[in-house]
Formats: sequence, structure tokens, C-alpha cells
Amino acid sequence: MSYETRISLGSLSLSRLVLGAWRLLSDLERSDADSVARLVHGAIDIGITSFDHADIYGNYGVEEAFGAGLQRWGGSRDTIELITKCDIMLISGARPENRIKHYDTSSAHIRASVERSLKNLHTDYIDVLLLHRPDPLMDADDTARGLEDVVKAGKVRAVGVSNFLPHQFDLLASRLPFPLVTNQIEFSVKYVSPLTDGSLDHAQRLRYAPMIWSPLGGGSLFTGEGVQEVRLRAALRDIASQLDNTDISAIAIAWLLRHPASLIPVLGSLKIDRLKTMATALDIELSRQQWFAILKASTGEDVD
Amino acid sequence: MSYETRISLGSLSLSRLVLGAWRLLSDLERSDADSVARLVHGAIDIGITSFDHADIYGNYGVEEAFGAGLQRWGGSRDTIELITKCDIMLISGARPENRIKHYDTSSAHIRASVERSLKNLHTDYIDVLLLHRPDPLMDADDTARGLEDVVKAGKVRAVGVSNFLPHQFDLLASRLPFPLVTNQIEFSVKYVSPLTDGSLDHAQRLRYAPMIWSPLGGGSLFTGEGVQEVRLRAALRDIASQLDNTDISAIAIAWLLRHPASLIPVLGSLKIDRLKTMATALDIELSRQQWFAILKASTGEDVD
Amino acid sequence: MSYETRISLGSLSLSRLVLGAWRLLSDLERSDADSVARLVHGAIDIGITSFDHADIYGNYGVEEAFGAGLQRWGGSRDTIELITKCDIMLISGARPENRIKHYDTSSAHIRASVERSLKNLHTDYIDVLLLHRPDPLMDADDTARGLEDVVKAGKVRAVGVSNFLPHQFDLLASRLPFPLVTNQIEFSVKYVSPLTDGSLDHAQRLRYAPMIWSPLGGGSLFTGEGVQEVRLRAALRDIASQLDNTDISAIAIAWLLRHPASLIPVLGSLKIDRLKTMATALDIELSRQQWFAILKASTGEDVD
Repeated sequence: MSYETRISLGSLSLSRLVLGAWRLLSDLERSDADSVARLVHGAIDIGITSFDHADIYGNYGVEEAFGAGLQRWGGSRDTIELITKCDIMLISGARPENRIKHYDTSSAHIRASVERSLKNLHTDYIDVLLLHRPDPLMDADDTARGLEDVVKAGKVRAVGVSNFLPHQFDLLASRLPFPLVTNQIEFSVKYVSPLTDGSLDHAQRLRYAPMIWSPLGGGSLFTGEGVQEVRLRAALRDIASQLDNTDISAIAIAWLLRHPASLIPVLGSLKIDRLKTMATALDIELSRQQWFAILKASTGEDVD
Repeated sequence: MSYETRISLGSLSLSRLVLGAWRLLSDLERSDADSVARLVHGAIDIGITSFDHADIYGNYGVEEAFGAGLQRWGGSRDTIELITKCDIMLISGARPENRIKHYDTSSAHIRASVERSLKNLHTDYIDVLLLHRPDPLMDADDTARGLEDVVKAGKVRAVGVSNFLPHQFDLLASRLPFPLVTNQIEFSVKYVSPLTDGSLDHAQRLRYAPMIWSPLGGGSLFTGEGVQEVRLRAALRDIASQLDNTDISAIAIAWLLRHPASLIPVLGSLKIDRLKTMATALDIELSRQQWFAILKASTGEDVD
Repeated sequence: MSYETRISLGSLSLSRLVLGAWRLLSDLERSDADSVARLVHGAIDIGITSFDHADIYGNYGVEEAFGAGLQRWGGSRDTIELITKCDIMLISGARPENRIKHYDTSSAHIRASVERSLKNLHTDYIDVLLLHRPDPLMDADDTARGLEDVVKAGKVRAVGVSNFLPHQFDLLASRLPFPLVTNQIEFSVKYVSPLTDGSLDHAQRLRYAPMIWSPLGGGSLFTGEGVQEVRLRAALRDIASQLDNTDISAIAIAWLLRHPASLIPVLGSLKIDRLKTMATALDIELSRQQWFAILKASTGEDVD
């Protein structure tokens, strides 16, 4: 295996590939407790023990459905890791007090959101709590107080952020007595801005491992007819054929794993077969030239 | 009152709302010494004790006109605070040696400009001296020497900058034995870039209070027919009606006060009635949802 | 003389003006060993003792041609300074293993590239080794190890980068036990972005001297008919006439020398007469207003 199946995040560890639960309620036939229990079993079987949530997923419904599945599953809590997020406030029947989409990084909201997530997930602790989006009204002292509170209370083991720019990360970090362990950002062969906008350099400098959402750039990688998508499929297929590996999604994930900042892809599929295929990426170490060939297919041009 | 009427800036304090004198000479009927004395009296009566200047305002004339008014006013110097700026070099009959608009952050110019400002304002010290614009030719060692000199001589109590980006601020700060106490930047419901460009995060991280110029975004907020202006007026009126406060300028100022970085709006009006109306903002604490509703009216879209 | 002819770069020094050898093989009549030896002699005579290379110049051929000239020259190694670069991997008959243009900042490549450069240049040490381009796959720990290795082995005296943004510089610097001594970037009267993008502020803050490539912005400054080129020539000629100096290239170089970040222009000409003319820039100290007049000719507008 080219890459370790576990990765450290501060004092805890996650599986190198994480299962993202955000679409759990999109397919109602698979979101009952039995199906979720099978999903958890199946994921663990292929080494995926970390599950990524947010309070808002499925219109504030995914955590609870997943929690029911966890109860049915009945395994030991310390064999899995649960990640969830807070701060986005959606207009939703589940939150009638929200009259406009907004953010809330206040300590009061952080504490309340953690309580709800613990209840929904039927657990005593969250492994990693993330602030979901940078909040232009973040009062860093107050936000840090909320994050400290939930950590000190043992309700959250580690804290991170999502979609933060380096300067937003630095502001919050300046107020915390412990490090932020991750920044969950978008990055894929289709969306390569983090290579140059400072996000990945910041992570590598501070030695935290970024989690990656939309690590395939969405399904259009497989079916889209845009020039970038066509170029990328050709490049990925070319490399897949060199590697005796016929699935281009594994190559696209391996492209992320090759980056030195220790990226943790959050896989959006809920099908064990698809997850198993993508997990073969852990065995694929792309050469530099293969990596740059994919970058060129993404941008349409050679590096400078 | 929702907000304190005073705000700390290093070891001194300003009134939370500052009167900007830049238009003093635009209305010659109000710029005689008697009128200015009345203006100073009236401002102090409503809690505005800090006055923002620059050497160049009114084609290098505002400081002197204001100084004449201060003499007529005759109050105690330590009941008010004077802010002024230097480094912009205008083409002007008052500066025949300037053949092109440029900047000068040399220590020699800083010292000379402070001497002129002291004389113009009929005072022994300036409370806060700001570098007016980032100068691409700033030699940070020499600039810092000039700033130190005027502080050590007791001619300036504190030093800040204006229109600086974070990296420009950091360069100058790296050479100074005391902190820069502010960065005076443009920010308003009409111009929200500082929320994302790092300026306000930088201020919050380093705990300095930014001063805000053009805090209403100019008069077009009230009369403009652009889509943004129309949206903003509707949103501000809606909130004004919720708050039994009929003046939307107070809401627009309250929107700034709500930000956690401790912003200090510099009000451009020279009419006591208008200032009194805007000062009611100190009693208005917008809710998060009201604040985001105004942001949405500014950008035209929900947050992500 | 307005400017010193030597400039410190960490513990070593370079001539303030550097000769860039990248075009050495463009003119085959001048690239034989005798011609190169004459060039080195001539450059030293006018105070230019530092020579800028890269492994890739002249399709991986310039270093070797220059090295032959150095042997013919026969002067003492410690009277000159050699700068070279690595990490760009070109498609080239000289590198058949390269199938796509890419970068390589691995320690293994750094060590191998230094060995080749030493051999090509017939020398025991390189004065300054630069990473040629920021590499999105840079593993800063491994890259730093490679750079440390070649320094500890005495094969390289000092290390820098080229074309790095501040955050890329900071990442690598965070892993090194010695400072990066320079960042070689593009800057000229035609290309002024470094004044505002943070590059020069970063250099001044950390007190390293940037090297400048394309310091004239290419030959089009003299012949181009674009609006910017026409404006710039007029402004440069105007100032040249004020200074009894008829060559505008010297004014364009003097514009760089006037910047407080201690810039080191890399001159691209291989003609001693042209170099001598440009070197007169060391005697030209532009006034602030002259400097801003050239900036205005570059951007087309006054400063704010």
C-alpha cells in the first residue's frame, strides 16, 4: 500500500478516506436504520472509519438518520470517528426562527449546536467539530470561548474549520489554546485553486491535514462534455491504463493523495462498491509526471 | 446604550463616532472661525470629541480653518482628540514644488508635515497621526524613524495608517517600537470588500480598532437609483421600521458598529442635526439576521 | 556614485548589477570559450562580478558553455559569484526522461542538479542556488533537506527562490535552518505588480534583497508601439534629458535601484557596451517625483 490507511489529526486519528454523509437522505431507500448500519459495517470493512456530517445536511435531518443507524449497528464507539459542523443557518421548516440564510459562530450557538448533534448522533462526543463557513461577524474571542467550552466539557475532541482562507484561520487560531486540526476545503482535478491561493501552503506550513470536499469535482467528471472534463477523462484514462487500474475515480483520488500536505478526501458516495473502488487509490502512487499531466489536463496548459 | 461612547486606541481613547473635517471648506459659509467653534461645541454636546483631518483636505486649507475655529472655541485641549494624516503630495498652488501627485513617507517629510499640522491646528500635539496612503517607495526603516521622532518629541501621541493592506501594515509595524493603533479604511453597506479581503480579520487578530471612512458609502445611498442602492434602501427602511427608528443612515452606521472588530466610523457631515441622527446608531444593536439581511441587500445574494 | 557596487546577500555579497547568461547560446558567435572569457573579463572590468544561470538555459546548454569560458578566463574563482537554479523539467533531447514540462523540488533532484551544475561550470561551489519556480508538489521538509545537504556539503553557499509568492516563500523558510537570501522575480517599469502584490513588502520586512529578472521589461521598451511603451519612452526620455544622460535603459534600471527593498537587476545583455551604459544607473539617484512620473507612465494614471 502506497499510503497509510490512518492519518493523525492532532491527538486523534482518522481513516485516510472519510465517508461524507451529506447525501444520506437523498435516497430514502437507503437511509433507514438498517441500511445505515450496513453502510457503516461496509465502510469499516474497507478501512473507512470516519464519517463526515454537518448539522444542516439533509435539511437538518442527516445526523439523526445516521444516529439511528449507528444504534442499529451497535459497534464500539471508539472504532469510528464522527465529524460534524455548525454555523450555517438555513431557512428551513426545522429552524423556523431563521428568516434569512446566515452564519452564527457565537459561543451560544456553538454550544447549542453541539448538544443537538450529540443527541442526533446518539453519542457522548464528537471527534472533530468544524466551523462550516467563515462568518464575517465572527467575534474570535467569543467563538474561541465556545469551542473551548465544548472541548473542556469532553463533548468535542478536536476543532477545525471549513472553507476558511488562511487569514481567517489565523484569526481564530490566535485565540485558541489548542491548534485547529484541519480546514475542510474544496479541491479536485477539476478545481485546483488551492494549489496557488495559499490554502495548501498554509496547511503544510502549520502541519495540519486538510480535509477535501467534492474530491472528484462532482459527477460531471465522468459524464460532462465541457472541454476540461473531456481533457481530464482522457488524461485519467491514459494513466489508468498505465497502472492496470480501470477506474478513473481512483486516479482522481490518488492525485489528491500525492500532494505533500496530507489531504483527507471526503468521499460522497454511499455505495460500498463505489467506495471500495475509490479506496484502491491508497495503492496508487502517481509519478510526478503523471501528476503534472493531470494538472495540465485540468488547466489546459503547461506549467510556466 | 448598546455601544460605549468611547473606544480605546492604544493608550488614548477616541469618541466612538468621529467627525471628519474634510469637507469643511466646501461650504464657505460654515468654515469661518465662529461656525467651526459652534460645530466643535455641538459635536462635543452629542459625544463626538474626535476630529479627523489630513494635511491635504481642502487643498491644504482645512486644518488651518479648523485651527482658527478651535481658538475661537476656547475649550480645553484635553477634552478633544485631533487626528491628522500626511504623505499624499498634491499638485496645488499651496505646494508649488509638487509637479506630480505622489506620496512621501520619508522621515523628513513626516517631521515637516507634523510641524505644519501643529501650527495649523494651533495645538501642541496631535492625538493620532496617520500615513494617508501606502507608498510604494516607503523605506520602512526611515519611515519608522520619522514616526518615532514625532512621538518621542511629544508632538504625536499615537500612530496609525490609512488604506493599508495587511502586508503593508505588517512591514511598517515590524520596524516600530510601538503598535500602530488603527488603519483607516473604506467600508460601508455599499462597499463590503473589507469583510473578505483580510483587512478586518487582520485588525481583529492584532486587536486594533479600524477607523472607517465613507461609512455611508456617499450620499447616493439615499438617492441613487442603482440596483444596489435601491435594494439597500429597501432593506435599511425595513429594519428601521422594525426598530422605531426612521433614519436609515443610523441603521447603516449601526451595521458597522455591529462588527466585532470595533470599528470607528468617521462621519462626513458637518451639520449637527445630521450628526445627532447618526449618533442614534449607538443605541441600535442589530440582530445577526438583520445584519445579514443588509449584507444580502449589498451583494445581491445569500451567503454561501 | 549614488549606489554601492556591492550588495550583501546573507553572508556573501554580489555585485549590485548581475549579468544574466540565459541568452548565451542565442548568439553562437559569442558563445565559444574565447568569447565567454572576454565577456567575463569585460563584465568584471565594469564591476559586474555575479553571473546568473539556470540548469535549463539554452536547452540545458548555457552552463556548460559558460563553464568552458570560465576555464579559458582563468581568473580566481573567489573574484566572481555564480548563481544557478533548478526544479524546472523541460521536454528536451537533453532530458529524454521528461515527457511533460513539470517541476521537481525533491531533495534527490536538487542534489543531482547541483552536481551537474558544478560539473558544467567547472567549479567546486555555487554561490547562490535558487529554486526556479514554485512547485505545487513541493514537500517542504524534503526540499529543505535537499537544500541543507548541498549547503552542508559546501557545494552551495546560499539558497534562494525565484518567482515565489510570499506564502510560498514562508512555507519553505519555515523548514530551513538558514534564511532564504533572495527571491528572483520579474519587475520593471513595464511590469509593476510587485509594488502592490506583497512581494517587495515581504522582502523589505524580512530584509532580503530581491533579484530582478527582465529589469527592462524586454526590448519592446525601446521599440514597442503600445500605449504603455510610448508613454514610458516619453517619460524616460524626459528624465534622461534632465539628467544629462541620454540612455533610457539606465533610467529604467535606476528606477529599480531607487526602490528601498535593495533590488538586484539581472541584466540580459551580453554586450559590454550595453552593460556599461546600463551600469551608469548606479550614478543616477532619481528624485521621488521622477520615480512617480515613471510609475504614472507605466500605469497610465496618477496614484490615488
